[in-house]
Amino acid sequence: MSTPLTLNDCRARDAADTLRPLRDLFDIPEGVIYLDGNSLGVMPKTAAARAAEVVTQEWGQGLNRSWNTAGWFSMPQRLGNRIAPLIGADADEVVATDSTSINLFKVLSAALSITAQDAPERKLIVSERSNFPTDLYIAEGLCKERGYTLKLVEPEEIAAALTADVAVLMLTHVNYRTGAMHDMPAVTAAAHAAGALMIWDLAHSAGAVPVTLKASGADFKESGSSKSADFAVGCGYKYLNGGPGAPAFVWVHPKHADRFWQPLAGWWGHAAPFAFTPDYQPAPGITRYLCGTQPIVSMSLLGCGLDGFEAAEKLGGMAALRAKSLALTDLFIQLVEERCQGYGLGLATPRDHAQRGSQVCLTREHAAGGDLGSGAFAIVQALIARGVIGDYRAGDGGIHKDILRFGFTPLYIGFEDVWNAVEHLRQVLESGEWQKPEFNRKHAVT
Amino acid sequence: MSTPLTLNDCRARDAADTLRPLRDLFDIPEGVIYLDGNSLGVMPKTAAARAAEVVTQEWGQGLNRSWNTAGWFSMPQRLGNRIAPLIGADADEVVATDSTSINLFKVLSAALSITAQDAPERKLIVSERSNFPTDLYIAEGLCKERGYTLKLVEPEEIAAALTADVAVLMLTHVNYRTGAMHDMPAVTAAAHAAGALMIWDLAHSAGAVPVTLKASGADFKESGSSKSADFAVGCGYKYLNGGPGAPAFVWVHPKHADRFWQPLAGWWGHAAPFAFTPDYQPAPGITRYLCGTQPIVSMSLLGCGLDGFEAAEKLGGMAALRAKSLALTDLFIQLVEERCQGYGLGLATPRDHAQRGSQVCLTREHAAGGDLGSGAFAIVQALIARGVIGDYRAGDGGIHKDILRFGFTPLYIGFEDVWNAVEHLRQVLESGEWQKPEFNRKHAVT
Repeated sequence: MSTPLTLNDCRARDAADTLRPLRDLFDIPEGVIYLDGNSLGVMPKTAAARAAEVVTQEWGQGLNRSWNTAGWFSMPQRLGNRIAPLIGADADEVVATDSTSINLFKVLSAALSITAQDAPERKLIVSERSNFPTDLYIAEGLCKERGYTLKLVEPEEIAAALTADVAVLMLTHVNYRTGAMHDMPAVTAAAHAAGALMIWDLAHSAGAVPVTLKASGADFKESGSSKSADFAVGCGYKYLNGGPGAPAFVWVHPKHADRFWQPLAGWWGHAAPFAFTPDYQPAPGITRYLCGTQPIVSMSLLGCGLDGFEAAEKLGGMAALRAKSLALTDLFIQLVEERCQGYGLGLATPRDHAQRGSQVCLTREHAAGGDLGSGAFAIVQALIARGVIGDYRAGDGGIHKDILRFGFTPLYIGFEDVWNAVEHLRQVLESGEWQKPEFNRKHAVT
Repeated sequence: MSTPLTLNDCRARDAADTLRPLRDLFDIPEGVIYLDGNSLGVMPKTAAARAAEVVTQEWGQGLNRSWNTAGWFSMPQRLGNRIAPLIGADADEVVATDSTSINLFKVLSAALSITAQDAPERKLIVSERSNFPTDLYIAEGLCKERGYTLKLVEPEEIAAALTADVAVLMLTHVNYRTGAMHDMPAVTAAAHAAGALMIWDLAHSAGAVPVTLKASGADFKESGSSKSADFAVGCGYKYLNGGPGAPAFVWVHPKHADRFWQPLAGWWGHAAPFAFTPDYQPAPGITRYLCGTQPIVSMSLLGCGLDGFEAAEKLGGMAALRAKSLALTDLFIQLVEERCQGYGLGLATPRDHAQRGSQVCLTREHAAGGDLGSGAFAIVQALIARGVIGDYRAGDGGIHKDILRFGFTPLYIGFEDVWNAVEHLRQVLESGEWQKPEFNRKHAVT
């Protein structure tokens, strides 16, 4: 396009957006353009009433009878069955439970147990250096426990790293820093061709992009299960809008599910939890990936988040959400390039749709000097002060630069939001207001 | 006492009870006598408003800014500091996080790592056969991983089981089935004298009975740290009234805290979680026992539960609660013995105050015959139908009999409640209504 876009163009796109009614399912604070749904999704309007119901009725009145009468005890499985279609898994293969880190520990433990039995000479776990750190920490801990080595590579080095001593390839589908997305079936097939097991972290994918953990249809006919992943984990509080710290989820390919206990073998994963036998007998299937009692109030709210996807299903589902997500991120990239030239911004996110998640990450050259470094932190703070909420991720001083990160959740972000966000960014850069001292305090952001 | 007690005696005790005002802090459903606070505590009246605040304001309006502005990120430590005085620990030694099962995995892993370094020849973990099963399952899993053996004994066999090959003695302070309580300092000292580490599960103690994890004062002068435990875990949703599946807590003696990573080494336990470095550097102290993102809504409600103990502190604190708890359980035992004779009931809970937690467990002989077995299950169901909520725990057909379990939470249970509960029990037994078919379905109870 050679004619620059206008605000009216963006408004016209919102008017034509068949997914636009979904925005009304969510409460978005007045005056906020929320581009951080990849960190913590916004609140579904039903959440307040659901929280009141769980607390006042189910807990307050039902008390411990609610484990049965309100279905508390089976909630991990029921929520898992609602997550399954979003990630290309089948019924009874997913449970919502615990945190992403803990679920990764479970599946990586299981993967290493399988390897130890099937291919004990394989002693490497390969991952990306810029994978979300908690994934690397969990892997590092397990390597120490079990005598494996964690090998960290850049994305373009993955194929070459799949040598004969690799036990597990463990990747996050969409990179938290750059928004770059792996080709899940192709990478999975490459891992399997090299004899390794494949673990995917879907923290920045589930609910944001279509995910196909299991090969099906023509893909399955062509490749069998070589394009089907082995294990996956994901997050409940980002694109799934489950609320702060909502329980995460875990998926295990059915062919592996019954092979091993995972070591967090608690009573919720027992075949007969209320028999109270002193010895552990794992439940069949994915239920053995449960451990202890779950935080029911937080878990209930995850259900409100999933309602949004069931509403979206009637409007085209993940395919429609993906199309809108790409339109939003395309628009953001185009507007930044048209309207924010000359301020040292770069693009960290791939332009190729096939390689892009649902976020756009900008870099900035270290031209500002002084305490402001690249300025990325201060620019994000100045935007937040204007109600445009994105976030900042520090670089490593090497090839990983400081990042300004903007997530675009197609369920509730509109095209005019994108226009307005870029306009704020332009004003922040043009006015130099980001250089004010109050934006230059480095404190924790998530 | 030879004169049988009357309802009026019980009412007089309530009138004289200085802790009685605490009951008003809680919502107890109309028509319910709730003797299951040892399974799930009742709802503090402030919980509904707090849930609404966290969901609508902190999540809905604050969004991810609330990690800092609403103190979400430091909540595990702040709640831990409020739990510490209830369990005889000091500030900055406790965090609220994850589930009891998962926390037990962390501390047992750490204990085995210490043993592997300090006394590698010790290869046994000793516990009680009737410990809460999830504790045994977690230990079983770790034994398998690390080449240890789990040895299960009866309570009276513990002393003899502390041989030179024991690495860890792992006990639940108050037994979930019988309400029997161990002498924590004495057992801890015995474990240490035998060269073993001591792990306590406080699921049925924290908030119910005074707990002294660390020897202090005269006790410390006499024994040094031999009466100080090494590790402890406990539950947030029983006597602490934190709501269904509220996060649990974990305590580690400061002398051990910095020695090892626990294997669930996630980003919340990192020394600099927002530096996002690829390698794990554990935070100093108890913070390294955190793993992933916590369920903030559920965790916030644990704070409401802890408010009750801070209110109790002004009325004598845990010592006063303990005195009332013993008075309640004494009364229940006395009334059952006076008013329910001839129905085959026995007492599983010790009469000795020093050996009794805050619950009373009754057994029943298998005299009824037929499908009803001991009748314990059906009697509990008949009581629940009358609004007297206790619970049932199946026996093993051997020395562990079927149990009718009644918990007495001194924060909100009164003496008239005890009278009424026993009167219902008497009527259920006398009328034989427990033999009705509707009470004879065995389904899951917690």
